[in-house]
Amino acid sequence: MAGAAPVEIVEVGPRDGYQGIVPFIPTATKLDLLCRLVGAGLRRVEIGSFVSPTALPQMSDTAEVLAACDGIEGLVPQVLVPNRKWGVAALDAGSRFLAFVLSVSESHNRNNVRRYPRESVEEYARLVETLPEGVDLRLNIATAFDCPFEGRVPEEATLDLLEWLVPLRPDCEICLCDTTGRADPAHVERLFGAAMARFPGSRRWALHAHDTYGLGLANIHVAWRLGVGVFDSSFAGLGGCPFAPGATGNVATEDVAWMFGRMGVETGIDLDRLVPVACDGAAIPGGLSGGRVRQALTAVR
Amino acid sequence: MAGAAPVEIVEVGPRDGYQGIVPFIPTATKLDLLCRLVGAGLRRVEIGSFVSPTALPQMSDTAEVLAACDGIEGLVPQVLVPNRKWGVAALDAGSRFLAFVLSVSESHNRNNVRRYPRESVEEYARLVETLPEGVDLRLNIATAFDCPFEGRVPEEATLDLLEWLVPLRPDCEICLCDTTGRADPAHVERLFGAAMARFPGSRRWALHAHDTYGLGLANIHVAWRLGVGVFDSSFAGLGGCPFAPGATGNVATEDVAWMFGRMGVETGIDLDRLVPVACDGAAIPGGLSGGRVRQALTAVR
Repeated sequence: MAGAAPVEIVEVGPRDGYQGIVPFIPTATKLDLLCRLVGAGLRRVEIGSFVSPTALPQMSDTAEVLAACDGIEGLVPQVLVPNRKWGVAALDAGSRFLAFVLSVSESHNRNNVRRYPRESVEEYARLVETLPEGVDLRLNIATAFDCPFEGRVPEEATLDLLEWLVPLRPDCEICLCDTTGRADPAHVERLFGAAMARFPGSRRWALHAHDTYGLGLANIHVAWRLGVGVFDSSFAGLGGCPFAPGATGNVATEDVAWMFGRMGVETGIDLDRLVPVACDGAAIPGGLSGGRVRQALTAVR
Repeated sequence: MAGAAPVEIVEVGPRDGYQGIVPFIPTATKLDLLCRLVGAGLRRVEIGSFVSPTALPQMSDTAEVLAACDGIEGLVPQVLVPNRKWGVAALDAGSRFLAFVLSVSESHNRNNVRRYPRESVEEYARLVETLPEGVDLRLNIATAFDCPFEGRVPEEATLDLLEWLVPLRPDCEICLCDTTGRADPAHVERLFGAAMARFPGSRRWALHAHDTYGLGLANIHVAWRLGVGVFDSSFAGLGGCPFAPGATGNVATEDVAWMFGRMGVETGIDLDRLVPVACDGAAIPGGLSGGRVRQALTAVR
């Protein structure tokens, strides 16, 4: 695989990893870890979300973290937003890269962002209209494969939702999210294959894989084979799974970096620098960590 | 993938999982777990090894376990042997399925079976000559991808060793073993692709994957795509990695069963029955467990 195009790993630990942790992580700790993640070669980092501070108190300092990002060279901060209102708040706070999240399955979308999927599409349409020039945007399609309430999501349901969304901004980065971790390699191959064929104008495709059932890397590998070039992951595998208490959630950044590194595919990540950050991430009080490479490399060294 | 050919999962926990555990597991406990593994749908089980009881005291009751296997309906007991002498001992004890192990890399073979690889080839040749009709045999090619002492093993080295071995029994099942867990999907694809093309007479190809770096399932999936149909795994991911103390070793049987199950590929395994056995396996004193599915399904239930 020498000579393969580089892949982009989007570090989502500071959002997806932290959000479920109950003791508030001091903003200074978040900034320290963020600097070290960038120092390990990560560029795009989902640094937080603009959401109700009542719903997710851990994310209440996102504006403060975002403001500090200007001082971190090389960092491309991305923030998650669940609707137009919070999207505008993110823009007002200076965000230049928004990730708009909605779910394919009605029950998850209502549970997560308190709207029917069609209402979220309208929110997205209005956000796109008001988006200033030069602001980047991605779509996070939650429950694209499987829903904690409804089980396996039919591929047509995901494609139908994309039929509504894609024309609103045809070149938008599209991230298919395995919210429950129950996607399997065959499913990933079928859905990405169909979506990439149907929406050839999308500039970038991304996969947000969870590792709850151990399939994070297998799913990423299959997607990569199809031409997907952007992968979300969380340092130390921070994240957990709210629907399987005690089980791990996000695929670990160090595991993804290890796989591509062994395959000769460039990620820009320096594992020697990332592993110590991951060890500190795993030690965050209240955090639930996962992944294999951190443990394996720490044991070897 | 509906309609795909079934795969065979070889449960190696009772050998590869137990062998590194220091407190002796009572033979009665081993037999109880073995019965329950077979009850969960596993058929071929590597129930132990015929090796020096000084080197691996945990395996010293293999003859006793083997004798009891006659009473377990549906079980195909396989035993590991490191040379001709122990192979004959296994046959004398009534074994009908031997796995002969040798390593591609000289340093690992000398460390593991105290011979140069060419000496092991001669041991294998002599064992094949004395093998009674109806006894099944597989070759376990250790360090086929990577060696704990020498690092990445060149593909040609593995293929060269097979050039010596295969003609001695052309239809033998060949299992390529990722001893360190450092194989990656691209490497698995290249080596199996080359080996299967070069030795088309081999009846069955198998992969013994480790999950030390999280790549067990990704590697199995890639091998399966190439037509490999036999996969070793260990219930509860029991095994550890002697070269990375504290890190997990074998890929977990329940994780492999989950992946194929989600993909619609038949394994014969009943996860509802396997997970409780895996939970008990993970509780064996001194054992090192791994895998994701056990934890995820236990959390959900």
